[in-house]
Amino acid sequence: MNLFGKHLLCTQEWSVDELEAVLSLAAEMKKDRFSAKYTSLLQHKSFLMFFYNPSVRTRQSFEAAATELGGHAQYLEPSAMRLKTAKTAGEINEDAAHVMSRYGCGLGIRILEDKIQKYGDGDKFLREYCQYGTIPVVSMAHDKFHPCQGLADVQGAREKLGSIKGKKLLMVWGSGALARSWCSVQESLLINSRLGMNVTLAYPQGYDLDPEVMADVKKNCQAAGTKFEITHDQVEAYRGADIVYSRNWVTPQAYHPEKGLQKAQEIEAALKYPDWITDARKMKLTNNALFTHPMPVDRGHEVTDEVCSGPRSIIYDVAENRLHVQKAIMALTMSKFDYKPSAKPQRVAA
Amino acid sequence: MNLFGKHLLCTQEWSVDELEAVLSLAAEMKKDRFSAKYTSLLQHKSFLMFFYNPSVRTRQSFEAAATELGGHAQYLEPSAMRLKTAKTAGEINEDAAHVMSRYGCGLGIRILEDKIQKYGDGDKFLREYCQYGTIPVVSMAHDKFHPCQGLADVQGAREKLGSIKGKKLLMVWGSGALARSWCSVQESLLINSRLGMNVTLAYPQGYDLDPEVMADVKKNCQAAGTKFEITHDQVEAYRGADIVYSRNWVTPQAYHPEKGLQKAQEIEAALKYPDWITDARKMKLTNNALFTHPMPVDRGHEVTDEVCSGPRSIIYDVAENRLHVQKAIMALTMSKFDYKPSAKPQRVAA
Amino acid sequence: MNLFGKHLLCTQEWSVDELEAVLSLAAEMKKDRFSAKYTSLLQHKSFLMFFYNPSVRTRQSFEAAATELGGHAQYLEPSAMRLKTAKTAGEINEDAAHVMSRYGCGLGIRILEDKIQKYGDGDKFLREYCQYGTIPVVSMAHDKFHPCQGLADVQGAREKLGSIKGKKLLMVWGSGALARSWCSVQESLLINSRLGMNVTLAYPQGYDLDPEVMADVKKNCQAAGTKFEITHDQVEAYRGADIVYSRNWVTPQAYHPEKGLQKAQEIEAALKYPDWITDARKMKLTNNALFTHPMPVDRGHEVTDEVCSGPRSIIYDVAENRLHVQKAIMALTMSKFDYKPSAKPQRVAA
Repeated sequence: MNLFGKHLLCTQEWSVDELEAVLSLAAEMKKDRFSAKYTSLLQHKSFLMFFYNPSVRTRQSFEAAATELGGHAQYLEPSAMRLKTAKTAGEINEDAAHVMSRYGCGLGIRILEDKIQKYGDGDKFLREYCQYGTIPVVSMAHDKFHPCQGLADVQGAREKLGSIKGKKLLMVWGSGALARSWCSVQESLLINSRLGMNVTLAYPQGYDLDPEVMADVKKNCQAAGTKFEITHDQVEAYRGADIVYSRNWVTPQAYHPEKGLQKAQEIEAALKYPDWITDARKMKLTNNALFTHPMPVDRGHEVTDEVCSGPRSIIYDVAENRLHVQKAIMALTMSKFDYKPSAKPQRVAA
Repeated sequence: MNLFGKHLLCTQEWSVDELEAVLSLAAEMKKDRFSAKYTSLLQHKSFLMFFYNPSVRTRQSFEAAATELGGHAQYLEPSAMRLKTAKTAGEINEDAAHVMSRYGCGLGIRILEDKIQKYGDGDKFLREYCQYGTIPVVSMAHDKFHPCQGLADVQGAREKLGSIKGKKLLMVWGSGALARSWCSVQESLLINSRLGMNVTLAYPQGYDLDPEVMADVKKNCQAAGTKFEITHDQVEAYRGADIVYSRNWVTPQAYHPEKGLQKAQEIEAALKYPDWITDARKMKLTNNALFTHPMPVDRGHEVTDEVCSGPRSIIYDVAENRLHVQKAIMALTMSKFDYKPSAKPQRVAA
Repeated sequence: MNLFGKHLLCTQEWSVDELEAVLSLAAEMKKDRFSAKYTSLLQHKSFLMFFYNPSVRTRQSFEAAATELGGHAQYLEPSAMRLKTAKTAGEINEDAAHVMSRYGCGLGIRILEDKIQKYGDGDKFLREYCQYGTIPVVSMAHDKFHPCQGLADVQGAREKLGSIKGKKLLMVWGSGALARSWCSVQESLLINSRLGMNVTLAYPQGYDLDPEVMADVKKNCQAAGTKFEITHDQVEAYRGADIVYSRNWVTPQAYHPEKGLQKAQEIEAALKYPDWITDARKMKLTNNALFTHPMPVDRGHEVTDEVCSGPRSIIYDVAENRLHVQKAIMALTMSKFDYKPSAKPQRVAA
């Protein structure tokens, strides 16, 4: 398996073996964080981070990942890029991608719902950089997918549950005042179904996700012989869950053809469902489920403090895992690291 | 003495021995800036710098400090943090602090008067990060204190005067068009009184500083057997001074309960005292005093060019010392550096 | 030859031998990019980058250059500097330069036409930092000159042509919607005339460049025994050219005494010359010329896609060379690198 130069825009585009290599290396890196095995992999190399949207965890964890691999991450904002847009003259992506490929060993891009005109534009933007550049592109979250978050979710769940195979994931919509993207949620559904979980997706009428992605989740479950159900009855949905992932997301009508994301309107609509919150009462219906969330958490809307800060919450572990999976991805795709997974997998047997 | 993991929000909260360890290490680091003893202390580690307020010296010196210790400083702006505020949904400090603790080896925070609602809010903000995070927090200047500036002041004064014990510090208010914070001034009064200086504080009626801090300065002087006086007669105040520290600061009425800092009004008021300027004539009354200032200097208001660029000015040396004391603090609190001060102190005997 | 500590504001201020040392080292560095000969030259050192204007290539290439030399580049924006201006109180350049000299090993400054009041102010600003600071200053592009771009141009041309001596450079104005600075164009005319090229400068009436710089170009050509001509007949100008450099630039009337750069008005004027574009038809008149441009390219205005992405375009190679010449400049002026050019020059004989 040679991942050098490979783009990562969605886990669905990588084979299970490739994803397992990332997860296995990430677990080893977490155990032995500053080992000399890893600290020179990107030495004197520049990883370019291109942030259309500000970020907390993503920026800190990618920049720290480059540092821990011996390299350096450049924090670039597109306001400084003078790129050509529909309305302004400027540099075309083809030129930017070619030149970045001369300077950097890899390129991370983050572009979310409020920086695009319509759903799918962010994904297209990343694929342009893949097409013209000659260095690997990694999504740092875009409108459709968030592969690093999906991998960190899996690492976190396995740390507590051992195997996740055959266990039940409840992905449940939450009320909220932040009008969130589909990317983390869709990525999590894809990778967890792929790796053998039963998936229940619960949300109020009108909050459908991308039908193409849902078709892939369905196929993943069929291939794994597991169950995929969509329900609007949140209470039933909690029963027997092993992991509860609660998160706000916008409606399919969130994008106005001219004005782009209609944030205020989406928030107003979401706040009409204050009962769509993960609380201790609902958690009692589960199989002593873990609680997870990609953060930032909108406490009091998506989840109560009691659950979010409770003993079954793994949100900080998952956040930490962002660092480890990203280090693993960068080591595998941007350096000549000859990785041989340990004979024994690092994770606890189920 | 083990300082690993210790927060530094104000020098008053550290023992004199601990402060002397910082000063001693800072002096050694200045002598031997790129010694291999120091250049791997933070290797592959990330120091997180959280800037609510822009900065020149603080940013440059902290970022260089991390580099010179082999690590990397991340420059983070809260506009990109999506934190919860009184008016907006977002992430709570508890969550941010927990996650930062997973990525970084230490956290610096800068939050000054124009980013808070009232005096004291900045200090509270830092203490929340201390409470929830598990990595050491260092103030990079906040509304109440500026410990790194205070330590750099002392290092600069000792370089020229040898011991500062029993010498006279004049802290004098200056006119100015910048509406400055109390932090540098209060920190300097605290640490210099603690280390044995006689302190004279001179300002026009109405420019009182924090009474709690003044009580601490008074106690420090009592404990050291030195003199602390507050005067509104600036000319008398210069007599016999060994160090003149001139600086503008705002009145206790600077914060409006809703509007926060009323900068324009403060500047207007301060400019009514053009005679509150340190000039050569007043410096003649001193004991050939050093002139110091935490910079940026508002030349022509706080001090004349003649004094500021004159032979007794130590402003650039003090600015340089910011680097050295910060390296020492980071080495002692964020790395496992086993520091033994040299048998002979590095500073000249008085 | 000892270049340690030397400022670089324009190639015209360095001797030909000094420029050839940079070019020779840059070629060696390109061949052996991560050689241990170079990767510790700036170890633990901070290069300060002061960006009045945002930038793509300049920022990425300077930051990568510092990383590849083992050091770290700080990205500083003047909005965070609180400098004194004609209208606001703040720190004077003298103070900022003194302090920066204590923290960094070198200082890069970028200040272009829209951040100054009139042509020449940017150059003055850089010279103030040279005067007061004690570390080498390198222009990262300012209103008059862009030395790193000029050196990268020459490196790119020599890679393809071997020697450029006696060959013909056509510098041709292009239409465009970006209102470009004179700096890249003037620098290229200076260095290429200095190194022995025949120079043809073609532009519509009214687009004269700086007469002092033109006098220098003329002198350079006289000294080299080559030809310098200015023409408004673009078609004739292409005949026999070995390199075509096409680029938009503003008129000498671009600066309003109070309002500074009048960008909209300049763009409106430039768009009236849509025929001033480099296209395949004109390129056929040349001696199979290379096409070059400092980027970002305003495709469809300055040059057609066919030429810009064609087989004779060297724009990406020149962009890459920015990295190599900047590494060479930093190694020679900011480190104690004892450089001996190889006996045999790295470039192909003509």
